[in-house]
Amino acid sequence: MKKLIIVFVLLFSQSNLTAQKSDNFIQYVNPLIGTQKMGHTFPGATVPFGAVQLSPDTDEQPYLINGKYNRETYRYCAGYQYDDKTIVGFSHTHFSGTGHSDLGDFLIMPTLGEMQLEPGDKNNPKTGFRSAFSHETEAVEPNYYRVKLEDDNILAEMTTSTRVGFHQYTFPASDKAHIIFDLMHGIYNYDDKNVWTFVRVENDHTIVGYRQTNGWARTRTVYFAMEFSKPFTNYGFKDFKPSLYKGFWRKFDQTKNFPEMAGEQIRAYFDFKTAKDEKIKVKFALSPVSTDGAMKNLQTEIPHWDFEKTKKEGQNAWSKELGKIAVTAEKKDDLVNFYTAMYHTFLSPTVYMDTDGNYKGLDQNVHSAKNFTNYTTFSLWDTYRALHPFLNIIQPKRNRDMINSMMAHYDQSVHQMLPVWSHYANENWCMIGYHSVSVIADAVVKGNVEGIDANKALDAAVKTVQTRYYDGLEFYMKLGYVPEDKNSSSVSKTLEYAYDDWCIAQMAKKLSRTEIYDEFTKRSENWKNVYDSRVGFTRPKSSNGKFAEKFDALKTEGQGYIEGNSWNYSLYVPHQPDKMIEMMGGKQKFAAHLDELFTMHLPDEYFAETEDITREGIIGGYVHGNEPSHHVAYLYNWADAPQKTQERVRMILKNQYRPTPDGLGGNDDCGQMSAWFLFSTLGFYPVAPGSDRYSLGSPAIKTAILKLENGKTLTIEANNQSDKNVYVQKVLINGKQIHRNYITHTEIINGGKITFLMSNKPNI
Amino acid sequence: MKKLIIVFVLLFSQSNLTAQKSDNFIQYVNPLIGTQKMGHTFPGATVPFGAVQLSPDTDEQPYLINGKYNRETYRYCAGYQYDDKTIVGFSHTHFSGTGHSDLGDFLIMPTLGEMQLEPGDKNNPKTGFRSAFSHETEAVEPNYYRVKLEDDNILAEMTTSTRVGFHQYTFPASDKAHIIFDLMHGIYNYDDKNVWTFVRVENDHTIVGYRQTNGWARTRTVYFAMEFSKPFTNYGFKDFKPSLYKGFWRKFDQTKNFPEMAGEQIRAYFDFKTAKDEKIKVKFALSPVSTDGAMKNLQTEIPHWDFEKTKKEGQNAWSKELGKIAVTAEKKDDLVNFYTAMYHTFLSPTVYMDTDGNYKGLDQNVHSAKNFTNYTTFSLWDTYRALHPFLNIIQPKRNRDMINSMMAHYDQSVHQMLPVWSHYANENWCMIGYHSVSVIADAVVKGNVEGIDANKALDAAVKTVQTRYYDGLEFYMKLGYVPEDKNSSSVSKTLEYAYDDWCIAQMAKKLSRTEIYDEFTKRSENWKNVYDSRVGFTRPKSSNGKFAEKFDALKTEGQGYIEGNSWNYSLYVPHQPDKMIEMMGGKQKFAAHLDELFTMHLPDEYFAETEDITREGIIGGYVHGNEPSHHVAYLYNWADAPQKTQERVRMILKNQYRPTPDGLGGNDDCGQMSAWFLFSTLGFYPVAPGSDRYSLGSPAIKTAILKLENGKTLTIEANNQSDKNVYVQKVLINGKQIHRNYITHTEIINGGKITFLMSNKPNI
Repeated sequence: MKKLIIVFVLLFSQSNLTAQKSDNFIQYVNPLIGTQKMGHTFPGATVPFGAVQLSPDTDEQPYLINGKYNRETYRYCAGYQYDDKTIVGFSHTHFSGTGHSDLGDFLIMPTLGEMQLEPGDKNNPKTGFRSAFSHETEAVEPNYYRVKLEDDNILAEMTTSTRVGFHQYTFPASDKAHIIFDLMHGIYNYDDKNVWTFVRVENDHTIVGYRQTNGWARTRTVYFAMEFSKPFTNYGFKDFKPSLYKGFWRKFDQTKNFPEMAGEQIRAYFDFKTAKDEKIKVKFALSPVSTDGAMKNLQTEIPHWDFEKTKKEGQNAWSKELGKIAVTAEKKDDLVNFYTAMYHTFLSPTVYMDTDGNYKGLDQNVHSAKNFTNYTTFSLWDTYRALHPFLNIIQPKRNRDMINSMMAHYDQSVHQMLPVWSHYANENWCMIGYHSVSVIADAVVKGNVEGIDANKALDAAVKTVQTRYYDGLEFYMKLGYVPEDKNSSSVSKTLEYAYDDWCIAQMAKKLSRTEIYDEFTKRSENWKNVYDSRVGFTRPKSSNGKFAEKFDALKTEGQGYIEGNSWNYSLYVPHQPDKMIEMMGGKQKFAAHLDELFTMHLPDEYFAETEDITREGIIGGYVHGNEPSHHVAYLYNWADAPQKTQERVRMILKNQYRPTPDGLGGNDDCGQMSAWFLFSTLGFYPVAPGSDRYSLGSPAIKTAILKLENGKTLTIEANNQSDKNVYVQKVLINGKQIHRNYITHTEIINGGKITFLMSNKPNI
Repeated sequence: MKKLIIVFVLLFSQSNLTAQKSDNFIQYVNPLIGTQKMGHTFPGATVPFGAVQLSPDTDEQPYLINGKYNRETYRYCAGYQYDDKTIVGFSHTHFSGTGHSDLGDFLIMPTLGEMQLEPGDKNNPKTGFRSAFSHETEAVEPNYYRVKLEDDNILAEMTTSTRVGFHQYTFPASDKAHIIFDLMHGIYNYDDKNVWTFVRVENDHTIVGYRQTNGWARTRTVYFAMEFSKPFTNYGFKDFKPSLYKGFWRKFDQTKNFPEMAGEQIRAYFDFKTAKDEKIKVKFALSPVSTDGAMKNLQTEIPHWDFEKTKKEGQNAWSKELGKIAVTAEKKDDLVNFYTAMYHTFLSPTVYMDTDGNYKGLDQNVHSAKNFTNYTTFSLWDTYRALHPFLNIIQPKRNRDMINSMMAHYDQSVHQMLPVWSHYANENWCMIGYHSVSVIADAVVKGNVEGIDANKALDAAVKTVQTRYYDGLEFYMKLGYVPEDKNSSSVSKTLEYAYDDWCIAQMAKKLSRTEIYDEFTKRSENWKNVYDSRVGFTRPKSSNGKFAEKFDALKTEGQGYIEGNSWNYSLYVPHQPDKMIEMMGGKQKFAAHLDELFTMHLPDEYFAETEDITREGIIGGYVHGNEPSHHVAYLYNWADAPQKTQERVRMILKNQYRPTPDGLGGNDDCGQMSAWFLFSTLGFYPVAPGSDRYSLGSPAIKTAILKLENGKTLTIEANNQSDKNVYVQKVLINGKQIHRNYITHTEIINGGKITFLMSNKPNI
């Protein structure tokens, strides 16, 4: 832990502003949080929702070794693991917090001396172009990353604009300075993931090309344009998997100073001579469309070589976004947690179009985004819960653009489906449900629909959920549940479909589409079909209508669930808690049941199969590191035990979010874990997105001022709040006490003041 | 030969027009000519210069077998070999007459009964989806191909528009009718040539997608849109090389009725129920840009289901193009030879842009062709000789568009080079020289430059020929020749560079660019540097300035030549025959030298290494089946022996062009062999394109009326011409006798009449 402390001293000691007074919220963001163990965040540079997320990769692991899944791969979902001692290089695309992965495109690495075109051994970095590094020399800020590459004593700095990565390397004096450009590198780089790569050296400082992969995204191409601040003296490449057929290209020596490179697995290099402390800068633009698009993005966004200017512009963008909530808190750590969480919620979805509005669609054609910004990276199974509801309040315009991006996806989908988990003009089908409909319903019900064709969106939702070949839907529509003998994770699917169906009903109600409302209100009760009142849990059911014989409510694998066991998943009826509680024996029994969940001991054998989380990611049997239980602590509100919601929420906030690299108990999941933190810290949570209600918890700040896009301001005050004073005595809206466990969306966006009077005793 | 006769009876017996009177020239075209042995033509349907060239493939051979070149591949450069007994299917792209290959995209094959997704054994076609066929049931016409697929008794017919193939299959009654759609099939299909394929089933009758290959063209993608005239009942596909990584697509059974397919090696099928004699039609559009582009092409070009209408429109287009020269001749065979040759000259270059003008450029970006039609398939080492000069007279507008296409290629080339051999947004670098400059110079010198920026084209030419890393150019520029120890085929390259340099000089002269004229006039004499006056031949020279010790003027391999030995290649000074003859000992000696060439016996050991041609492709030691000697018969004109030019030309016309499937003595080479035939048959030949002169030979028609694009008409009369009367007694232009061995371009395009008075005796 010694090293850690040093890092934080480095990072924060420059600031002499007090936490309470400053509105320079960037200082509280620590992008290293979550980079150790299972957080799967990355520490590199990006602007809010940036297309380029430029970050060091500390290792690259093949997805398969001898045809078998390599468990090490999983640690590198975001490319960087805090415990590693070497950096392979800096690549331009990263997911934040995912539990499966892709990307890591276009690795850049500066080196000196003899050319090495292999990354080398992580335990002996001198064997390749990778380099030792230490956290002592790291600086990590929003839109700025700096590290000393120790092998060759090169200082690496990076910053970005939305579509352009800006590298700055300070070299020692050398006749043999190189910049390696690795197109083989990637995250989750299983065999043959690279389908094709293509590079053109346009002149002595400009390179363009693309990388096409078959990975989590099956048919994905990313185009680039790269400019060096100084002409290279020589360049070349190596083809690590030459085609059997060379054709008439044999007439050239393509390996050196030959301006066209192509192949499946190639790495290039560019040579320079450097004076002492000479900076070589690299601007690296991405495009979803073409190299022309990438070049235009480069020229439009960063037409200069002023690294500091770009850094500053990006940090100003962060200041603006983070400033949308001005928080005061007792301890600096609280601010670090809050603004780092806010930072993480603003990393994705990512912008996915050129500056001219062109983007590649799901149909692989080029489309033009009319009147919206096109986004990608939709980890919807995670993010429908809290991230999109959070954006619906704090980033309503962007949330609408995201919905329009999802609608464009629908228009381009040959399945006529809204996205499930989509990135880079691809549906990757990850996880379950059809939670696009929740995101859309949440916006429609809350009236955040300017520029969205809400009726068309409802039609798209209805069409989506009728895709018979999708994940057991044929049976779900026929039987009212997904039968376990026909489709795995059948209970999870049934429960989530039922909630999503309720979302469709809510949207239909808002739009006065009665038939749809009726149909989907009926479907929304399907969760009952997998509830076995004899055991008090949901459990898998066969297509013959009988529940499975074997059943273990603690077990996940092979039990009809995914990322959660029956103990956790059986509580997944966010849209109808009252009915669920009634079915489970009434409020009192239910509160006791929740208590048991939070206090039980989950034996190691069960924990081992709980994906994605550390041992710290669970509390009793409650698994916060995975998403299905994210609403559970709030369910006490329906069981006449709001004080328990308040206790549990504060316990989770304290245990699961710490301002350290290992501070996240599970994958941040594209901001969902962070969005939970933000809501809960502010004192309320959207248990059922698609409802206009937020369930009240226990605010963990002193004050928070929300600057809303409608020009209004909402102030949240938590009077007398402290680590001990977690209980809410009274809630006043604009000075008037309310006598309910929820607030409405209107009460938030109309602005004003919500006052929580806190105490160390429950208000029973 | 019996079978052959039957075919021709089928083909021609319907016509009761006499050869002399008809202007229905289509009747004389026999696309089967050249489909046997080495002609490498294809018999399928296409419109003039069509992007879609839809033709049966009788076999598919891997390029490599166990890592070694499979000699059988070569026979299938155009997909069809006349001697074969089975058809694998019908694919949409073919080169005509090349000696290396690519394409064969998107094979369609109708079948009945049990589904077979492998093509099967050519000796036992029932083992797969291929079918036996017989020439008896074949009908081959411009833009129409018909055959009975015997295995399943299906009649296959096809026709095209520029960008759309139109299939019509007449089925027996069946519950199990299928249309196979093979994306693995291809020509020169070495291992892993398919980089990626992608298919979307948009609805029950529409499919779109693309095929991306790494072949002769290294980075090539072709997009398609396909429509069936009738909904299919079911469909599916098989992935013959599944990726190790399946991701979350595993949740689907993708093999049946799943609308999205992707992978490296896939074949799909579509099922139908058919009544007796029911026709299922397929429209299949290509695009260089996108599936959207393909769909637009389909809808724009063939918005209906009237097969006969499309056939008729295409045949009308052929009538119009073929009608540009109205020939009368003594024998029908002469007309068959003439119009089939003309047909073959109008097959390529091919249109390479969508109906909206968009196309993919060499830089892989999408460009819009402004004020020109973009073409591809530039086999320039072949076609600069006679094809482009022929187009310069008969298709001047298209020739200008082709030059503008070459200029676009230049603008998009990272090498800043004009094309060498290019197709489908790729330079494939095949063969030698930089003959784009000849094509451009020929147009510039002849004044066919409306809409071409001639000065920019000259700059492009100069830039192209200064690419130091290109094929020995660095040495050529320094030493005045390509040294054999530095670069193979050094003599051929030196000779061709020298001629091309002369072309640049001619263009510069026309444009009054004196410096360039002087520089390249000097370079144009470089052929002298490889001429060894001691042996009377060119021969390879080392970088130390010494000729190679070993030398065999009959040998090709390892001797400094390509597609020709020193005997043939030493005559390759088309731009300065006088100087060459002087160096070779004067006119008399030179004429005797030519006589020796035409009458010598080339021993089998030497013939064996002469690529691309049949034994019939040579006359003595003169190799007509390859291009480097195409001007040689005309060189007698410079040696005061025009009667020998007349004799030899007529001999070549007779021996090398016969109206039978095996009638071509060598690869037609994208129309070059045919263009030689057309010029020579009309009585003149462009010995040195880039000059405005055509050397006179011996016309082999009675009359020919050239309808020029400028509205003028040129009539060529060969009075008293016959197989025996091959000698020219007098030539009159508009009634005035000329006393020279050439005519000028102006004399042709000004129209009027050129009269040859023929005799059976030389005019000595």
